[in-house]
Amino acid sequence: MGGLRSVRRPIDSLVMSVDEDTANHGRLLGTVRGPHDVKRMTGEQLDILAAEIRDFLIAKVSRTGGHVGPNLGVVELTLAMHRVFDSPRDRLLFDTGHQSYVHKILTGRQDGFDKLRQRGGLSGYPSQGESEHDLIENSHASTALSYADGLAKAYALRGEQRSVVAVVGDGALTGGMCWEALNNIATSGNRLVIVVNDNGRSYSPTIGGLADHLSSLRLNPGYEKVLDTVKDALGNTPFVGKPMYEVLHAVKKGIKDAVAPQAMFEDLGIKYVGPVDGHDIAAVESALRAAKNFGGPVIVHAVTRKGYGYRPAEEDEADCLHGPGAFDVETGKLLAAPSVKWTQVFADELVAIADERPDVVGITAAMAEPTGIATLARKHPNRVYDVGIAEQHAATSAAGLAMGGLHPVVAVYATFLNRAFDQVLLDVAMHKLPVTFVLDRAGITGPDGPSHYGIWDMSVFGVVPGLRIAAPRDSASLREELREAIAVDDGPTIVRFPTGTVAADLPAIRRVGPVDVLAESTRTDVLLVAVGAFGLLGMEVASRLAEQGYGVTVVDPRWVRPVPAELVELAAGHRLVVTVEDGVRVGGVGDALGQAMRDADVRVPLRDLGVPADWHPHGTRAQILTDLRLTAQDVARDVTGWISGLDGDATSVEPVRLPATDTSPN
Amino acid sequence: MGGLRSVRRPIDSLVMSVDEDTANHGRLLGTVRGPHDVKRMTGEQLDILAAEIRDFLIAKVSRTGGHVGPNLGVVELTLAMHRVFDSPRDRLLFDTGHQSYVHKILTGRQDGFDKLRQRGGLSGYPSQGESEHDLIENSHASTALSYADGLAKAYALRGEQRSVVAVVGDGALTGGMCWEALNNIATSGNRLVIVVNDNGRSYSPTIGGLADHLSSLRLNPGYEKVLDTVKDALGNTPFVGKPMYEVLHAVKKGIKDAVAPQAMFEDLGIKYVGPVDGHDIAAVESALRAAKNFGGPVIVHAVTRKGYGYRPAEEDEADCLHGPGAFDVETGKLLAAPSVKWTQVFADELVAIADERPDVVGITAAMAEPTGIATLARKHPNRVYDVGIAEQHAATSAAGLAMGGLHPVVAVYATFLNRAFDQVLLDVAMHKLPVTFVLDRAGITGPDGPSHYGIWDMSVFGVVPGLRIAAPRDSASLREELREAIAVDDGPTIVRFPTGTVAADLPAIRRVGPVDVLAESTRTDVLLVAVGAFGLLGMEVASRLAEQGYGVTVVDPRWVRPVPAELVELAAGHRLVVTVEDGVRVGGVGDALGQAMRDADVRVPLRDLGVPADWHPHGTRAQILTDLRLTAQDVARDVTGWISGLDGDATSVEPVRLPATDTSPN
Repeated sequence: MGGLRSVRRPIDSLVMSVDEDTANHGRLLGTVRGPHDVKRMTGEQLDILAAEIRDFLIAKVSRTGGHVGPNLGVVELTLAMHRVFDSPRDRLLFDTGHQSYVHKILTGRQDGFDKLRQRGGLSGYPSQGESEHDLIENSHASTALSYADGLAKAYALRGEQRSVVAVVGDGALTGGMCWEALNNIATSGNRLVIVVNDNGRSYSPTIGGLADHLSSLRLNPGYEKVLDTVKDALGNTPFVGKPMYEVLHAVKKGIKDAVAPQAMFEDLGIKYVGPVDGHDIAAVESALRAAKNFGGPVIVHAVTRKGYGYRPAEEDEADCLHGPGAFDVETGKLLAAPSVKWTQVFADELVAIADERPDVVGITAAMAEPTGIATLARKHPNRVYDVGIAEQHAATSAAGLAMGGLHPVVAVYATFLNRAFDQVLLDVAMHKLPVTFVLDRAGITGPDGPSHYGIWDMSVFGVVPGLRIAAPRDSASLREELREAIAVDDGPTIVRFPTGTVAADLPAIRRVGPVDVLAESTRTDVLLVAVGAFGLLGMEVASRLAEQGYGVTVVDPRWVRPVPAELVELAAGHRLVVTVEDGVRVGGVGDALGQAMRDADVRVPLRDLGVPADWHPHGTRAQILTDLRLTAQDVARDVTGWISGLDGDATSVEPVRLPATDTSPN
Repeated sequence: MGGLRSVRRPIDSLVMSVDEDTANHGRLLGTVRGPHDVKRMTGEQLDILAAEIRDFLIAKVSRTGGHVGPNLGVVELTLAMHRVFDSPRDRLLFDTGHQSYVHKILTGRQDGFDKLRQRGGLSGYPSQGESEHDLIENSHASTALSYADGLAKAYALRGEQRSVVAVVGDGALTGGMCWEALNNIATSGNRLVIVVNDNGRSYSPTIGGLADHLSSLRLNPGYEKVLDTVKDALGNTPFVGKPMYEVLHAVKKGIKDAVAPQAMFEDLGIKYVGPVDGHDIAAVESALRAAKNFGGPVIVHAVTRKGYGYRPAEEDEADCLHGPGAFDVETGKLLAAPSVKWTQVFADELVAIADERPDVVGITAAMAEPTGIATLARKHPNRVYDVGIAEQHAATSAAGLAMGGLHPVVAVYATFLNRAFDQVLLDVAMHKLPVTFVLDRAGITGPDGPSHYGIWDMSVFGVVPGLRIAAPRDSASLREELREAIAVDDGPTIVRFPTGTVAADLPAIRRVGPVDVLAESTRTDVLLVAVGAFGLLGMEVASRLAEQGYGVTVVDPRWVRPVPAELVELAAGHRLVVTVEDGVRVGGVGDALGQAMRDADVRVPLRDLGVPADWHPHGTRAQILTDLRLTAQDVARDVTGWISGLDGDATSVEPVRLPATDTSPN
């Protein structure tokens, strides 16, 4: 492992230089079994421990992949939090949660890092099942302040003396939930500490007026002066009670001319302490102690650097090694061989379309690189809008753009569009506006676990009147369906595809309406409706069933909402219909086909396969799909059972409608 | 109509006293055919026109019902807007939209007010179909700034010189979407005017830190001084270009010591003008003109009084006659006879439960009175939290309260919970937290039109794992199901009921699992599943079918999600299953029963009746349900057709499973 990961000091810090030999052997870290072990350490020991934690993080996460940049940035912050507060009695809440690795290391979970984010291994987010020190399991941004407000209210009502501490990034503060929470916290008067972990970034640099405001605080000439003042005022003596806090506060107020406007939070009625150097354990600890002892809500503004102490992360301009796969420790480069991803196919085709159509613009919610919208931004920088972690605003400002004559393409992860359901329904769809939502990471994703699974979209957005949803199966169909979506001018569209490497192109034999026929037989035993990337699985199932003498027609509906009438007609021409989709079964594509078949009085038996509406654990996509029996082998076995069951009970399954002319074999 | 509605001047104002005789005859108003007519008027004429508009509003809305208080508060504001800006070239956007009556009056729609909010009549919100002066049709709060940001971006990109003006209430500013939008608008640099219509209220007084901040601006001793300064600086000469604005701005900055902190918006980077007296047309006009001529985003802070000029509205402490039904002009009292509403049954039972269980607390999103949570607040004031118009925070802070050991009851209109889908899914349900959401105004509501229909909840929230949904049919079942919901301790629950007067109690014959059997016969032709308030309709259908010799079992499942296993068993014991629900068919209760029947291999034909997923116009609930053929007569006719169709094709509908023992008749 060598000295490459030894801590550099790119910004001023009070942290002492680290004995590399000691750090690299992790001697101190090995003694930490819980927060109490950290509380006993001297300043010098803490500095050594911080360096050991960085070495540990880089060594472990380089093998498993994971959120390395965010955690390198909060080593000192987390140490200080565990020294000042008494978890789990006091509640430490991590917004988004991917920056909780250090917290996990300090709460008895070092051994788990060998299987980080792997099936059966440590979660990449806080997990109640792992530790009593964890509470929030949702990894969507901007929620922690709301949980904190509720918890603090509950403790107040129940008369429990417990501190609630929420750590939130400056990026997450661009989300509207934080505003709603701050507005409530301000007047609640409850004991609550909000630590703003300000590294100037979410994935990419944080945008908007708030970012400018934080930046003005951070970069103001008064910064050092305030820092000194805070340190002077606090000294090393513990702070007790409100009066002392007010002394500090008065000191800070007194020098406010030297400081940038810190009025925004104070205008809301929330006390503000900062900015403090987030890599200076003593400074953070002092600020937290003052905040803890104040009787009401306090914001502690800690300035940190994402990827701090690891050169490849600090120098990664895109996202500071935000959440890579396994990587080379020396260079920070990913170990996996490059392959063509769904995201890149979308990104390239969007640029091609935008080159032809000047009215096409892109929107991202703080994820320009991960969603591929950055490719468009590089070509047409004035036609891409990064709205921050603000999916609601992404949808409704897209409605505004469309009202103004443009065709916006909103690129988000499937799981995050749930934040904007109401806006997609009323602001976009009710106004019949041409907005295209591109949902990356749809379906079962993998190592990020249940709150990142994009399995809800086809059900939830399936209820939206006039909204059309496409689920491409390969590169060619993604390019084609994206073009079709952006050509729609009288309402919204969704194009959704999974994570990872795009499968080889799977050409259609022919097309019936919008439906691609991928395979057919001289017999019409089974219509297998393979949604999106399950096209290949459908072909494999058909092959297995053919070996048993059953004739299977495999179709990809391409546009799954609304249900194509041609799909219902195809269903009527078979003895059994089976759907398989990478989304929840409840209200899914198969279920919608069932309703359409009822409405058309098509009484062919239907079996709809998909993801059970439940909380599925993290693992690889392949592992989870295997667990859910969504493999060619399993589906073929199920279908064989159903179709052979029909043979013994033929009268009840005889198709009541004849196949339409254009759907008969050959 | 008399002088009762003549304008009082409860706060200082520059508006001249009105000649009552002139005002009451509406002579000037009769000459207004469009915004150009308002632009030509003198100050004296405008004052008379304002008084005539108030008389008109009170006279009309007292007959039809509607949002009287909010519109009385924006008479002068709307006049000034139409004088300064050129609608529809310039875009006037009304957040929430219920304060657009004056705008409608000024844009050629006076004649429509006789049928305000009635079927085929004028919408209570902006409507593109009514006028080119309208753009946003969504009446959910806090959206307008996002639309405005998108529109301004589109005009900038297309090189169109048009102003975008968004009017937003201080109440709506508590919604997170506004924060997301402000954060983006601040750095966009686009020409955009945000008019904060600050009346200190949404329905009830606005809560939180923002409200305190606005209040500090409003009540500061510097108020009058600023007002004078603004007036002096502006004079009567038109402002041109940025430099002049900056002069004004510098003047205001210069006297900032006399003014309360106005830094919050300016810290974000948005220029702030105000506060101005929103009932002083000249002052508002001057401020708007300055804002219009400034080259970037500006906030104009107008202080208004909800219900201004009409004593019964001003003196209504609950909500300033926010949106009453038809009322008596002299007293402001409602004309309709009092009757027992669903809301009141809920409110009373919640208090009874809370008296027994100290862990039960209430949450409202700025609607304590309309949702009935105010009844709990009067009894247990420290156990109710008003979070502002902030449904996301309502849900996630409820999660925090539940994590802290309490059982929160979140009372909202059904349509508004859509805002918090992601939070209910991940923050509440994924953590298996005991939070009860009470959805008032579920199903078809009526005069508020499509964006207020609560028809999505059973489909959208039906996908949430572990979430149980109850749909009571009458007072007794509402009380019972609310108690059952609050008794659930391992996950979230929803109790949903419609608007209006609760139907007479409809006792069950017996209960099968959670399912109430309301009627049964010696024959088992039809199982009629009547969801919630459609219980009575189910009984009437059964009666009509009995006359034709068909035997109908009518059941109320009570708990509709997840689908009770007993309901599937009951279905298996009949020749035809018909469901009828007050929600969208796609993914609805009937559809879910269909999936459950498939999974159990129950091949009894199913017909699922409900609301088509579409945008239904405003009207009375009864009218809309009739249009949708959701009446006893229509349903009976449909069922007769289906069951007689089955008779001719018996083999294909023979039940493949025998009825379970406990479901056989008697």
